[in-house]
This record gives sequence, C-alpha cells and structure tokens, in this order.
Amino acid sequence: MNRKQGKLFVISGPSGTGKGTICADLLKDENTRFSVSMTTRPPREGEVEGKDYYFVTREEFLANIDRENFLEYAEVFENMYGTPKDEIMRRLDKGRNIILDIDVQGGLQIKSAMPEAVLIFILPPSLAELRARLEGRNTEKQEIVEKRLGKALNEIKLISEYDYYIVNDDIETAVKKAKAIISSEGCRVSDKIKMIIKNYENEKGE
Amino acid sequence: MNRKQGKLFVISGPSGTGKGTICADLLKDENTRFSVSMTTRPPREGEVEGKDYYFVTREEFLANIDRENFLEYAEVFENMYGTPKDEIMRRLDKGRNIILDIDVQGGLQIKSAMPEAVLIFILPPSLAELRARLEGRNTEKQEIVEKRLGKALNEIKLISEYDYYIVNDDIETAVKKAKAIISSEGCRVSDKIKMIIKNYENEKGE
Repeated sequence: MNRKQGKLFVISGPSGTGKGTICADLLKDENTRFSVSMTTRPPREGEVEGKDYYFVTREEFLANIDRENFLEYAEVFENMYGTPKDEIMRRLDKGRNIILDIDVQGGLQIKSAMPEAVLIFILPPSLAELRARLEGRNTEKQEIVEKRLGKALNEIKLISEYDYYIVNDDIETAVKKAKAIISSEGCRVSDKIKMIIKNYENEKGE
Repeated sequence: MNRKQGKLFVISGPSGTGKGTICADLLKDENTRFSVSMTTRPPREGEVEGKDYYFVTREEFLANIDRENFLEYAEVFENMYGTPKDEIMRRLDKGRNIILDIDVQGGLQIKSAMPEAVLIFILPPSLAELRARLEGRNTEKQEIVEKRLGKALNEIKLISEYDYYIVNDDIETAVKKAKAIISSEGCRVSDKIKMIIKNYENEKGE
C-alpha cells in the first residue's frame, strides 16, 4: 500500500472551550504535528525557532506574502503572524497530519486557500458553562468576561462553515471524538483511491 | 442538548473481505442496529420475523413498491428483497445508527434515494489475498473463485461513488476505523447544529 497523503485539521473554538487540551492530546500521536507559524514578533525567552515559531524580519514576512506562501496571515498589535504553505505541504506529502489551532476568521481563510483542509469547531456545553469557565480561570473583570462571551457567540455563528463540531462537556469524550474525526478522514475516498484500484487491476492483469 | 438524528451506514465490499465480522462488531454498540429487510421468501427454520426479515406476501411487497417505501429492492431467484424506508426513518429519528450490509449496486441505489446515507467500502489488502481467502474458505472450484474475483474487481471499480474505504489487512484496525467513521459522522456540522446555536442565542438573550 502506498503512503497516504496527510491532512490539515483546523481546530477552532472560543477561549475556555478546552481546545488547547484537546490539541495537546492529539499531538501525542507520532503522525500528528502542530503547524508552526511564521511571525515578525521577537522570540520570548525559551521559545525555539522552528518549534514555537519561525521568527523572521518584516521584510522576509512581506516576501512570503508576495510569493503567496501564506494559507492565512494577520497583523496583531503591529506583529505579523502567518501560516506558511510550503512547510505544511512538505509535511502533508510525508503523510503527516497537521493540526492548526487558529481562530474562526483564520480557519475560514485556510478553507478558502485549501478547500481540502478539515475544519473542526470545539463548542462549550452552554454559554453558562463557558461563562463559568472564563470566570473561574482568573480574576478578570466582569466586563472582560462579557466581551469574551460576546466574541464567542459571534464565532459560534460561523460554525456552519465548519465540517465538524465537538461539544466539550467531557474532555475525554471530546478527545476521542477528535481522534475519530482524524482517523475517519484518513479513510475518505479521494484521488488516492484511484491508485489503489490501479494496483488491483495490475494485479488482476498479471 | 437535544437528541441527535441517527445515520444510515451502508457497508459494502466483495465477499471474503471480512465485512460480516466488521458489521457484527459494530452492532455491539447499543445505539447501532442492523437494517431489517423485507422479503417475499418464506422464513427458514429459526428465522425470526422483524429480526432476520419482515416476511411478506408478494402483494404486500408490491404495495410497498407502489407507495415508494423502498430505499432499494431487487429480485433474486424469484424472491424479492427490499430495504423499507419507513422503518429505517423511524429508528433514525430515535437517534439510532443503522447498519446496512448490502452489495454495491444496492448501496448506490440507497445513496440516490437518501443522499445523507454514509457509504463505506471494505477492501481486501490485495486481490491475491482475497483469492487466498476465497480459496481457503471452502473447497470451491477454481472457476467459481475466478468468477468471484472478477465480480470483486467490478465492484471495486465503483468505489469512487463511496464516501469511505477501509482496507481490511487487520480486522482489529479495520473495526476501529469503522467505529471512527460512525463516531465522526455524528460530529458533522448539519442542520442540527442550527438548533444548538439557537439554544446559545436564547441563553445569551436571557
């Protein structure tokens, strides 16, 4: 059997939905890797080039934009962040699955640049539960919690653009579902299957 | 959270691919049931009405055709066999997943009658392996084995109409993949998700 092409999985969801925990668990599979972003932000202490980010100058970043090497990019507080296409394609070709933890706007950009990407949305069991998680997380002002909840609802409204959703009311079940999605996507009938059939036909002809 | 609609999973594949073993394992899940066919064939000893088949007269069968109650039907050696829609819909509405073990022609009829059905194709690791399995199964004539292999190849050529494929080179892995497909299909963003969002919005409005 020939080696399979890997897939790009975009995982989005409001903060407080447990998205980070789910991603961390998925990466325990040796065939699954995080996408590494490119940024113009200077490295913080302990951050490793090529693992946490690809750290580049603004000129280098703009050159990547020019040659259309970003699946998506954005500017946040005067720093630029982008998802480099060449690096991801190289790893997908090696049969790796890539996980990209990104907000909904970024996810939709990815889908438009790469329609074969698989988009997964992590949902809280309810807004009340999300509020409780956000409030429990630290001593943030009510105002900030309200703002985040409003943002969460706006993100959730875009869920129809996504392929899958997982309601995280139990982290273990949520991780299992995410793993099932990755596994099943590897079983999708695609162009790849034509090669398998070709093999059968060659075999038959012999 | 409201109860989810179940899904209809069609499982096809040439004989000798281990399809039966995979289906039997999937049915261990209490939420997954076999589709029960309707037939004009008389019951054999030990066969139970409503479990093995719905046994009906030819007139009853034809009446079901008239009211378009079959997702598919076929006549085999003067007996009629069909997959009754009303019974399947009733169980899907109850949130059950239904497994339908049927040949490729039947599978394609189902897809055309019910596009939301999920089609899974079970493949042997190779034709050589399938031949070995067919020959090992009993003392059938070489001629029959060849005929079955030819039929298998013709079925495999239709795989591009299917949604998923599973290469059964290890039964345990194959069962895991089938379970992953069923689980992930329950996470698909669909009309159902609109109700979930509605719930969030109502919550927010309160």
